[in-house]
Amino acid sequence: MASKILERFQPLFQPRSIAVVGATENPFKLGFHALAAVTAAGFPGEVYPVNPNAGETVQGLRARHSISELPEGVDLFVYAIPEAQVLPAVRDAVSRGGRAGVIFAGGFRETGPEGERLQEELVRAADVGGMKLIGPNCIGIVNTQARLNATFASPLAWFPSGNVSVVSQSGGMGNCILNGLMDERVGLSKFVSIGNRANVEFAEMVEYLAEDPDTKVICLFIEGLDRGDAFLEKARAASRRKPVIVYNRGYTESSARTALSHTGSVASSEAVYRGAFRQAGLVQVHSSSEMACLSKAVSLGGVPAGNGVFISTHTAGPVIAISDICERSGVRFPPLRPEIAAAIQEFLPRHAVAANPLDLFAFAWTDSSLYLRSADLALRQEDIHCAVAVFVTGAGSGPAFPAREYAEIGRRHRKPVFLCLIAPALLSQELEDAQREGVIAFNTPEKMAHALVNLVRHRKHISPCTRTRPSSP
Amino acid sequence: MASKILERFQPLFQPRSIAVVGATENPFKLGFHALAAVTAAGFPGEVYPVNPNAGETVQGLRARHSISELPEGVDLFVYAIPEAQVLPAVRDAVSRGGRAGVIFAGGFRETGPEGERLQEELVRAADVGGMKLIGPNCIGIVNTQARLNATFASPLAWFPSGNVSVVSQSGGMGNCILNGLMDERVGLSKFVSIGNRANVEFAEMVEYLAEDPDTKVICLFIEGLDRGDAFLEKARAASRRKPVIVYNRGYTESSARTALSHTGSVASSEAVYRGAFRQAGLVQVHSSSEMACLSKAVSLGGVPAGNGVFISTHTAGPVIAISDICERSGVRFPPLRPEIAAAIQEFLPRHAVAANPLDLFAFAWTDSSLYLRSADLALRQEDIHCAVAVFVTGAGSGPAFPAREYAEIGRRHRKPVFLCLIAPALLSQELEDAQREGVIAFNTPEKMAHALVNLVRHRKHISPCTRTRPSSP
Repeated sequence: MASKILERFQPLFQPRSIAVVGATENPFKLGFHALAAVTAAGFPGEVYPVNPNAGETVQGLRARHSISELPEGVDLFVYAIPEAQVLPAVRDAVSRGGRAGVIFAGGFRETGPEGERLQEELVRAADVGGMKLIGPNCIGIVNTQARLNATFASPLAWFPSGNVSVVSQSGGMGNCILNGLMDERVGLSKFVSIGNRANVEFAEMVEYLAEDPDTKVICLFIEGLDRGDAFLEKARAASRRKPVIVYNRGYTESSARTALSHTGSVASSEAVYRGAFRQAGLVQVHSSSEMACLSKAVSLGGVPAGNGVFISTHTAGPVIAISDICERSGVRFPPLRPEIAAAIQEFLPRHAVAANPLDLFAFAWTDSSLYLRSADLALRQEDIHCAVAVFVTGAGSGPAFPAREYAEIGRRHRKPVFLCLIAPALLSQELEDAQREGVIAFNTPEKMAHALVNLVRHRKHISPCTRTRPSSP
Repeated sequence: MASKILERFQPLFQPRSIAVVGATENPFKLGFHALAAVTAAGFPGEVYPVNPNAGETVQGLRARHSISELPEGVDLFVYAIPEAQVLPAVRDAVSRGGRAGVIFAGGFRETGPEGERLQEELVRAADVGGMKLIGPNCIGIVNTQARLNATFASPLAWFPSGNVSVVSQSGGMGNCILNGLMDERVGLSKFVSIGNRANVEFAEMVEYLAEDPDTKVICLFIEGLDRGDAFLEKARAASRRKPVIVYNRGYTESSARTALSHTGSVASSEAVYRGAFRQAGLVQVHSSSEMACLSKAVSLGGVPAGNGVFISTHTAGPVIAISDICERSGVRFPPLRPEIAAAIQEFLPRHAVAANPLDLFAFAWTDSSLYLRSADLALRQEDIHCAVAVFVTGAGSGPAFPAREYAEIGRRHRKPVFLCLIAPALLSQELEDAQREGVIAFNTPEKMAHALVNLVRHRKHISPCTRTRPSSP
């Protein structure tokens, strides 16, 4: 069973060869960007530009003038052509043994009855040959592990490889989520802009990603579902194996109207969705940034075993913000046990009091060993399940946080360690470095707090992931 | 009256001369960074390093070996010395005619009764000479318009000048707010890390900023207040002249405990604070990012006169997210009037329907004039008070949004125009360029939506600012 779904989608996610239909040298056409995207990623298989108007080559690759000129059995067809040309081109591909297709063009189901009929014909044509279609009306797919960038955005070729996968109904929201992951320095495995879902639905993608060994976290952006039951069944099964994080929008009047004219989805009642998702074990978030932060923590193995947090800082304000947000939502900062407090008190600077939250004052900014020694003691306590350090980075002109040593302490205690590294988003190298060492870092107290709340609240649904060794981006 | 408070704080915010007490060439000491910060900003007045252990010069400036060696009447004393040395150094400064001081050291009121007594002595010593003290236990002040960086962070010297001013009880949260402004590309006027508030309270700072001609938006981070009534009186008066945005934390158990040992403030009940702030006309936010986004919109003149928004896009998903958030909170997307819809329908591409939200499909990504023509028509409608365009940037490898022309349309209709420019935070040059043209831009749908909600909800309290011409960063 397991291998069946992986096999079925192998031509899509691990193609041996790609035809870019509509490939051109004219940079004002989508076909230019689609071919450039494929080659920019360094795709190792054969790439065939197809265009009746092409010369000998397109972007340095030998051109074919029709699909019939292609060798038999090209795996993946990327269609960068107008809607009217798509149906015959899918038929041609099927007749040449094509197994998977990505269709960018809109003008199908989302436009009304005529478009819906056209889309149905498309599905019939594809199903004849068992061809899986992503789209139409989408921005394509990415598989970093296969160096596959079947979109029309070359920059996605450089997305760091990792273990978070994203399926988005909307290309634009897919972009938002990818931006969020990029800003949080989270690596990507698969990205699927699923669009109108001609013959590939959320249900199948979730089933695939649940089996995919490169995926540790599944992220979904959903506007509306057609076959909700099929999805929930697959999602429930997936959530038992990996965290499935859902960002769902489209409940209010205008948003539902837009969703309808978008990928042809009927948005449904919020309460119904939320209840069903919760029952299926899905974790629901409310923004692309929240999704990225939670994905990161899970991806890096940062799911605490309980709700107890030890937090230390050289500056109290951000801890006030973090604990204010956390304590409203069930995260606790347990008092230190007397003997642990006494041991910490011994090396504390003047005026500092061994407590949780622990304020080390400005001393800890220059003597960062205070963070290490106090965390090493506090993590011995059974009701403390993770440690958080708060540190304002000097942006290169001040001391740096000892991330490697802090991560080492976490590993020794088998408890995740976090860092709230207060820095502008533009200065994120230090954050990335800390994460590479094994510390899960956020650049604002609010992101840190909401990540803790989500981790603690959903730890039962997201914990499977902690059992596997995550590959960091 | 007006000039009195400005005069009183002139030595602090517009000093003619600065003494850095504790200035040194040893980069492991705060006094090194404090002097470097002052000179990095290009302060145009006299700068006097003071240190008994100095040689002839410190960092290239002639050193004084005691405060008594200084000329009479140096305006501002920056104290980068340990707590025990602060009191005599304040006395010395007062006797030489010093008018203002910034004290970084902790170890005062926040540490208990002994510290509290020390702080009281400090206040008595300063008050004798009418010397205004910022701190102790703070990271200092910035005034971009005076090229003043009296902190120990050189990078703040390069903060873009603008019309938003920030007063933060916590240095760390002050940093967070400044990072937020930097990420949103908002210019700064004054920054005050107010710390233990020896003899300068929130009340006075708010009164000062209300009068300050360079400040258009006042941002406050508050953990607790001692003399709440005095503050509320000044805040109420200020909010009648300029928007006052408050971020208040420290309500829950641990956070209140931390606040107490921090700047010696007793956090009070949340409901009491919230009610009092609301009655005083203050706008309350819940994160540094929300504060930065709202400040930016107000600073750039983006307060709509009503709750009606016209929104157009080439990608529906982000609009679904925006309208979903907005419509829950009183923002409306009014239907287009028949004659306006008809006029828009004339130039719409195939499948697109003239409506609000307006989905222009992928066509608008390459033909961005569709945004301009539709906004120009929709903004004629009386119940539409601003326009929002959603655009996924190609990160240099795709088309750019026509920000200049879009801003021009907004100016013609005297209605603010916004851009949700979907891009990673790391790629914010295009966002900054759009803002320079007069379009208020956010890089995620959620930031865009929450800014609209805040603008619409609080438009009565933040509208005074729209009457003045804002200086963009």
